[in-house]
Amino acid sequence: MKSGYLRDMAHEEKVIDLNADLGEGFGHWELTDDEGLLGVVTSANVACGFHAGDPSRMRRVCALAAAGSVRIGAQVSYRDLAGFGRRAMEVPAAELADEITYQIGALRVFAQAAGTQVAYVKPHGALYNRIVWDKEQAGAVVDGVLLAGGGLPVLGLPGSAVHEAASAAGLPIVAEAFADRAYRADGSLVPRTEPGAVIHDADAVVYQALAFARHGVIIPADGGGRVQVHARSLCLHGDTPGAVELARRIRDALASADVRIEPFA
Amino acid sequence: MKSGYLRDMAHEEKVIDLNADLGEGFGHWELTDDEGLLGVVTSANVACGFHAGDPSRMRRVCALAAAGSVRIGAQVSYRDLAGFGRRAMEVPAAELADEITYQIGALRVFAQAAGTQVAYVKPHGALYNRIVWDKEQAGAVVDGVLLAGGGLPVLGLPGSAVHEAASAAGLPIVAEAFADRAYRADGSLVPRTEPGAVIHDADAVVYQALAFARHGVIIPADGGGRVQVHARSLCLHGDTPGAVELARRIRDALASADVRIEPFA
Amino acid sequence: MKSGYLRDMAHEEKVIDLNADLGEGFGHWELTDDEGLLGVVTSANVACGFHAGDPSRMRRVCALAAAGSVRIGAQVSYRDLAGFGRRAMEVPAAELADEITYQIGALRVFAQAAGTQVAYVKPHGALYNRIVWDKEQAGAVVDGVLLAGGGLPVLGLPGSAVHEAASAAGLPIVAEAFADRAYRADGSLVPRTEPGAVIHDADAVVYQALAFARHGVIIPADGGGRVQVHARSLCLHGDTPGAVELARRIRDALASADVRIEPFA
Amino acid sequence: MKSGYLRDMAHEEKVIDLNADLGEGFGHWELTDDEGLLGVVTSANVACGFHAGDPSRMRRVCALAAAGSVRIGAQVSYRDLAGFGRRAMEVPAAELADEITYQIGALRVFAQAAGTQVAYVKPHGALYNRIVWDKEQAGAVVDGVLLAGGGLPVLGLPGSAVHEAASAAGLPIVAEAFADRAYRADGSLVPRTEPGAVIHDADAVVYQALAFARHGVIIPADGGGRVQVHARSLCLHGDTPGAVELARRIRDALASADVRIEPFA
Repeated sequence: MKSGYLRDMAHEEKVIDLNADLGEGFGHWELTDDEGLLGVVTSANVACGFHAGDPSRMRRVCALAAAGSVRIGAQVSYRDLAGFGRRAMEVPAAELADEITYQIGALRVFAQAAGTQVAYVKPHGALYNRIVWDKEQAGAVVDGVLLAGGGLPVLGLPGSAVHEAASAAGLPIVAEAFADRAYRADGSLVPRTEPGAVIHDADAVVYQALAFARHGVIIPADGGGRVQVHARSLCLHGDTPGAVELARRIRDALASADVRIEPFA
Repeated sequence: MKSGYLRDMAHEEKVIDLNADLGEGFGHWELTDDEGLLGVVTSANVACGFHAGDPSRMRRVCALAAAGSVRIGAQVSYRDLAGFGRRAMEVPAAELADEITYQIGALRVFAQAAGTQVAYVKPHGALYNRIVWDKEQAGAVVDGVLLAGGGLPVLGLPGSAVHEAASAAGLPIVAEAFADRAYRADGSLVPRTEPGAVIHDADAVVYQALAFARHGVIIPADGGGRVQVHARSLCLHGDTPGAVELARRIRDALASADVRIEPFA
Repeated sequence: MKSGYLRDMAHEEKVIDLNADLGEGFGHWELTDDEGLLGVVTSANVACGFHAGDPSRMRRVCALAAAGSVRIGAQVSYRDLAGFGRRAMEVPAAELADEITYQIGALRVFAQAAGTQVAYVKPHGALYNRIVWDKEQAGAVVDGVLLAGGGLPVLGLPGSAVHEAASAAGLPIVAEAFADRAYRADGSLVPRTEPGAVIHDADAVVYQALAFARHGVIIPADGGGRVQVHARSLCLHGDTPGAVELARRIRDALASADVRIEPFA
Repeated sequence: MKSGYLRDMAHEEKVIDLNADLGEGFGHWELTDDEGLLGVVTSANVACGFHAGDPSRMRRVCALAAAGSVRIGAQVSYRDLAGFGRRAMEVPAAELADEITYQIGALRVFAQAAGTQVAYVKPHGALYNRIVWDKEQAGAVVDGVLLAGGGLPVLGLPGSAVHEAASAAGLPIVAEAFADRAYRADGSLVPRTEPGAVIHDADAVVYQALAFARHGVIIPADGGGRVQVHARSLCLHGDTPGAVELARRIRDALASADVRIEPFA
């Protein structure tokens, strides 16, 4: 899978973080194989109860993550269990900020109980997409992170409004790329509403992960050459059948290609 | 209202804490006059979102409390917005413990943002009543408080199962008396299901508060003499019309009777 | 308050419906004086549990409405208790339709138990505002009403997208005007985000109700002459102090001006 | 699996209904293979949104059930998404009754939209277990069913308090047996808290179903002979891996043994 050409280009050691959403069940409902994923990723985006997640799941995932030296991030969301946080909402900025703070606080107590800390914040779903461009909500998320204290890094899309707002507020920002999402030649993601947005072929996913991690490039879906993607973290999806196995393949492929896999936080 | 007889008995300075439930609205719905009550009480039991309370309200109440040097307690509850936490529930102990921890964590972030701390825990409603006798749930609440860290005191009914469990676990316990609840000769409360359980006459409420704060006694509703009630805190109710005015009257009466009003935490 | 000029213009008998939102509490929280309002209005928009309302409240309001010959409407909303249905949401059309149907069904059983029927549907809050212009969500609401059966009329803003969609689908539509909202010269409402959007002066509210009911005109807030407003129903707000008294004043003023007050359904 | 002895005892045609819980997902979370189960059972207990279920799922399951001539029952529950309805609750009787009515109404609109009706009511989880003995809550459930109209049969445990209350109120009652639950010699179920309460061996489950359906007997787990179980319906569980396959095996075994499989409603 790894061509000699790609290999030749690598002159320096590459470092990458692997993040995935975890704890996205609720009560009786399970979604992700938390234990399996925690054996692969270096950063766990833990659902905090607003789109998914509940206290017992949060405690358990934090304990497992801490035991495995996986970093814990607060996967904050709109308050929307019925829609899994995938319904964009017009929330007044001040309320949204407080909802972000609340979720971070609720997760922090479990991280601390496990002997570690919430190390970063990653917005989820419709909120994630919204604050790519919506400056008001982006600012609200940053306000919420600031109020929570600790100067937490914000993990998100490179060039997003939330990254601009976070930087302006003095918060660290961390960019991520996606192993299984198609990119356009301009470096943006193919929207999920369009065909081909998600890459289903496992080999293609591993290849994209590798090209990105080794060379910072991704082959765009709409043809043309290659697009530079600067990101410190690679997002893996954990909510599909075979997700853990695919994540494991990606990790192994990266390791074989001398990519150092290490959390950013 | 204060008889000379009662006065003569007082040989030492008395100290009492005044606590009340605050922030018990939800979204658009308001219940308590938080600002009014915060001008009277020394300890605020802040709803954490499970039976009432929401992030913005929690932030606001914490900010006001901190500004007024009122101590902040986590008013933890069953997860029951529809029933206002007044429906006793059979929650598995481990889940209940985690739900308690979650609520404390969610409030703590706002207390810390306001420059202070969650200083104690007070269970609410059906959970409060249940853990007077239910050792399993009492133990679960204590486990949840322990997991949250900080060795928080548990405010509750003297002699309750939760106080026994908290003591056994090394947590401080603080007993409370009620200004407007009728007591029996054995020192227990008249259950709410019985007539006369709640004292509606304002003078009688002030009198009971005074007798308790000055002399540690309460005149039982079922006749007989007086019953000793040892408690460091006096619970005032804030969710009735005129609640703030009555709370103010009680505080003034206590101050006039040389009772020092001071938080326990 | 009623000028002779306005009186002279009235040559034919006028008929108007008075509608208000009812049952907008939740569990322990009360908002509207349901019993008071039911003595004034002819149509009750009953909250169905998604932004407010709960089963016991729905049963009670339906029973009172039926006893008072007040028509019952399903006040359908986004699923958003925390935001009181005031947060616009991007809900997939098919899901939104089903949520509308669910709410109508849940209210219908109580209306039928009270010996009557759900007679119409009125969207609430952010959904109401959204489907003034959003054709997709407007269509979804209409689909939900159709699926619920009974060909229920949709009460809403004249000229709204939901009215167009409802008409196209063969559903009756009923337009409403607002007694306490300022209008622009083009007949649209002054948005709530602008100053002066809500008329607080009771006399002015009564005057606007009267001018509308007698002559179908409203004096716009931005000057100029008068604007024609064609509407069969007048919306009164019930969630402010003195709401019932003001509603009563409006009803009395209309009755004195020979306006017949009668439900549309 | 079927002994000749058991066969010899059968002199008359046997008729049995097969019921299972369906639609027990919520939003993004799936639990049961609704389509698979609907190909096997004759009665579908459809979750109504209180412990599981949402409007779109309810519509879909009702449509599939109607198309397959499967009867639709309202699987009513305590309001407890977080606990999947498995947390017993002290709900005031009047509130519980209204919550039952609400759920039936919400499901009925989808059943009617699919051209059929809600044909029965089956309480779920902790409520099911509670109203085996709790007369107050049993009465509340019956009140809720009565208020919903239509004189719906109540499916439940033979001899339960809810069956007594339903009979006294003139509602039809339907008893059920369990294919995969161990029974005691007195005909009661082995509580889930005890080891061996659930039968995991597929052959044993099929055998129990057969013995019950053919002869109305079940071999108790605590030894001894056989216990008579009179029930018109057999409950299959759908929320385990392989559930559909097992259900299919049971159905086939019953059919081969000349048991007529037919809904009760």
